[in-house]
Amino acid sequence: MGDLEIILASGSPRRRELLKGLGWNFQVLVPEIDESPRAGELPKELCVRLAATKAHAADSDENSLVVAADTIVVVDGDVLGKPVNEDESLRMIRRLQGRVHEVLTGVGIRWKKRMSTGLERTRVRFRPLDDAAARAYVETGEGRDKAGAYAIQGRGSLLVSSIEGDYFNVVGLPLCRLGTMIEEMGLNLPCQWGVEAQR
Amino acid sequence: MGDLEIILASGSPRRRELLKGLGWNFQVLVPEIDESPRAGELPKELCVRLAATKAHAADSDENSLVVAADTIVVVDGDVLGKPVNEDESLRMIRRLQGRVHEVLTGVGIRWKKRMSTGLERTRVRFRPLDDAAARAYVETGEGRDKAGAYAIQGRGSLLVSSIEGDYFNVVGLPLCRLGTMIEEMGLNLPCQWGVEAQR
Repeated sequence: MGDLEIILASGSPRRRELLKGLGWNFQVLVPEIDESPRAGELPKELCVRLAATKAHAADSDENSLVVAADTIVVVDGDVLGKPVNEDESLRMIRRLQGRVHEVLTGVGIRWKKRMSTGLERTRVRFRPLDDAAARAYVETGEGRDKAGAYAIQGRGSLLVSSIEGDYFNVVGLPLCRLGTMIEEMGLNLPCQWGVEAQR
Repeated sequence: MGDLEIILASGSPRRRELLKGLGWNFQVLVPEIDESPRAGELPKELCVRLAATKAHAADSDENSLVVAADTIVVVDGDVLGKPVNEDESLRMIRRLQGRVHEVLTGVGIRWKKRMSTGLERTRVRFRPLDDAAARAYVETGEGRDKAGAYAIQGRGSLLVSSIEGDYFNVVGLPLCRLGTMIEEMGLNLPCQWGVEAQR
């Protein structure tokens, strides 16, 4: 994005790929924060608070634009985290099959001492899966390190019949909302595409 | 997919990437067919007919699974094809901004003398764009060879605020529907993930 230094405050390889897809140059700083929920905190409050905390925690020059996010999978009010083993992966996939769940991402950006946060919500519908199919998906190993035990962008694409909302939110970073939030801080879309600099 | 030979009857690099993401091995055969619409043909009829025609046209062994597709962008009943130049790209982006359009993909698969066709429909909402932003997106050059003059998977991700339906349909191949159609021909999901072969 021109000469602007961008910091991605996240260790997620998916988020890294998404920003690369925009053609942005950025550095990665992985913030160490306490991710445990507070008593009575709603899922939508949790992910926004964690995104803001990550954006604050990233040690950076104040002229750098810091981008942070926290994505959670919610079904019947329960937050599904990363599965600890194959049994838990299987329980998650069985719970998600044949119905709709929600993916929430909190986004926090920081630039020149200003901070902005946002929340993006996408509804995801899984196709029905019999037990052999659920087991086979878990065996691919792909969902091992992912909230909800699946990856929509990989072999998991065969699980998801439709979504309502932003697809990239499900991958881990709602790009259109991120672009709008950055615009509201004063960096318009042409600048985000690096086009003005070429004129 | 085990020992099954798969033929992708399409020259689209996006479809190639999507099948690679599933971990499938396949060959590409680009069929030469007449893509012009028939008098009075509806967009949804056109894309299914073209997909079936492509699947038929691919010269293959009858044991190979042939996969073909045709994707169109539809707004107010008009089909938007690939733009011929930057002016047409700009007209398309201006027409799509701030509203919903549809992406339709016809899918045709052929295996052991059987043929199956399907249609997938996704609603895509563009965020509002001022003229400078529309021009800047066209200048990225990314939408040049794409129906509707945009690529949802690239810098175009900043244009799309939400979708309803299958994301991969907008990229050019509705993977979940493809998987279901292949399943109906007798190749179940574990087989599609190549998992059974490892047992």
